[in-house]
Amino acid sequence: MLNILKKHIEKFAQVSDNDFEEIKKFFDIRDFAKKENLLEEGQVCRHHYFVLKGLLRKFYINEKGTEQTTEFAIETWWLTDNFAYEHKARSDFYIQAVEPCTIVYISQDNQEQLLQAFPIMERYFRFVYQRAYAAAQKRVKYLFSLSKEEFYWQAVRNYPEFIQRVPQYLIASYLGFTPEYLSEIRKRHLS
Amino acid sequence: MLNILKKHIEKFAQVSDNDFEEIKKFFDIRDFAKKENLLEEGQVCRHHYFVLKGLLRKFYINEKGTEQTTEFAIETWWLTDNFAYEHKARSDFYIQAVEPCTIVYISQDNQEQLLQAFPIMERYFRFVYQRAYAAAQKRVKYLFSLSKEEFYWQAVRNYPEFIQRVPQYLIASYLGFTPEYLSEIRKRHLS
Repeated sequence: MLNILKKHIEKFAQVSDNDFEEIKKFFDIRDFAKKENLLEEGQVCRHHYFVLKGLLRKFYINEKGTEQTTEFAIETWWLTDNFAYEHKARSDFYIQAVEPCTIVYISQDNQEQLLQAFPIMERYFRFVYQRAYAAAQKRVKYLFSLSKEEFYWQAVRNYPEFIQRVPQYLIASYLGFTPEYLSEIRKRHLS
Repeated sequence: MLNILKKHIEKFAQVSDNDFEEIKKFFDIRDFAKKENLLEEGQVCRHHYFVLKGLLRKFYINEKGTEQTTEFAIETWWLTDNFAYEHKARSDFYIQAVEPCTIVYISQDNQEQLLQAFPIMERYFRFVYQRAYAAAQKRVKYLFSLSKEEFYWQAVRNYPEFIQRVPQYLIASYLGFTPEYLSEIRKRHLS
C-alpha cells in the first residue's frame, strides 16, 4: 500500500528502492473510520497526512456554530493545517475522514529528520507545496470571480467523479450553502 | 543589493559566499517604474519575481472590466502566477509595480538548472512555497469567515505599515470594494 506514496515521490524525485526502504521508516500508517477525526480544534497540529485510500476534509466551526469545510483530500493528496504544523501550534481546524481511510502520516520532527537524511525529499516536498500553492492561488481567483453557484457547476463539469463521491451536505458546507439551497439550485438546473 | 536575497536564502538554507557567487548568476535584476507591468494577461508567465525594493501587485480584469487585485508583494516576498509559471502557460493576470521597484527574477529553466546545480536551493524554495501555501490557507479561511469590512480592520491592526503604504484605491481593489465604499467605512469608524 505504501507503494502509492513511493510512486507519488517518483513523479518528482528519483528515489531508489533501497532509499525508499529507509524513507518509509519516517512515516506511520493507520486506518481511520468514517467520521473519525484525525485532528480537532484546539489540538497541536502534529502531523502531515497523505491519503492512500479514502477521502478527508478539513473544516472549522464558524461563529454561527456550523461546519465550514475549506478543503478536501483524495488519494495521493497531502493535507494538514500547514501553519499550525510548521509552528507546532494549536489548530483552528478539524480534519475528518469522510470515508473509511488509510492514511500515511509524518510528524514535523520526523519530516525534518527525513529531509536531513534524504535531501532529495526536499525536491519532492518543494513540488508538493508548489502545486498546492498554485491551486490555492487559482482558488482565491475563483472565490472573487465566480458566484458560489457558478463555482459549483464548474466543479461538476471539471471534477464529476469528485462531486459524485462527496456527500451533498459536505459540498454545501464547502460552498457555504445550506444543503437545502444546494438541492434547490440542482433542481432549478434540471427543470 | 543582491545581499537581500542572500540573507533571505540563509534564513532557510546554508549557502557559502562562494556558492552564492555562482547561485546569483541564475538570476537577473531590473528596475521597474511605478505602474510598469512585469507581466500582462495573455503573456506566457516566464519569471518568478523577488522584491528587493518596492511593492508589486497581482491583479486580473474581472467581467465588469475592473481590476481585481489578488496579491501584493513587498521586500523579500516572491510573486508570480505559479500555475502559469510552472507550466510555461499564458497568464490570466497582470503583475504591476505599485512603487518604483528593484526586482530580482529567475526564469523557469534557470530555476530548474539552479536546483540541479545547487540542490540546497530545493530546501530554500520548499520553505518559500510552504509558507506561501500556509498563508493562502489562512486567507481562504478569512475569505469565508470575515466580512470584507472585518478583514480590512484586521489588516489595519495586524499590518499598519502595509496599509499605510498601499494606496487606498488598491486596498479597495484587493477587498473587492469600490474606493468610495472604503472611504465610507473609514469615515463611519472615525465618527
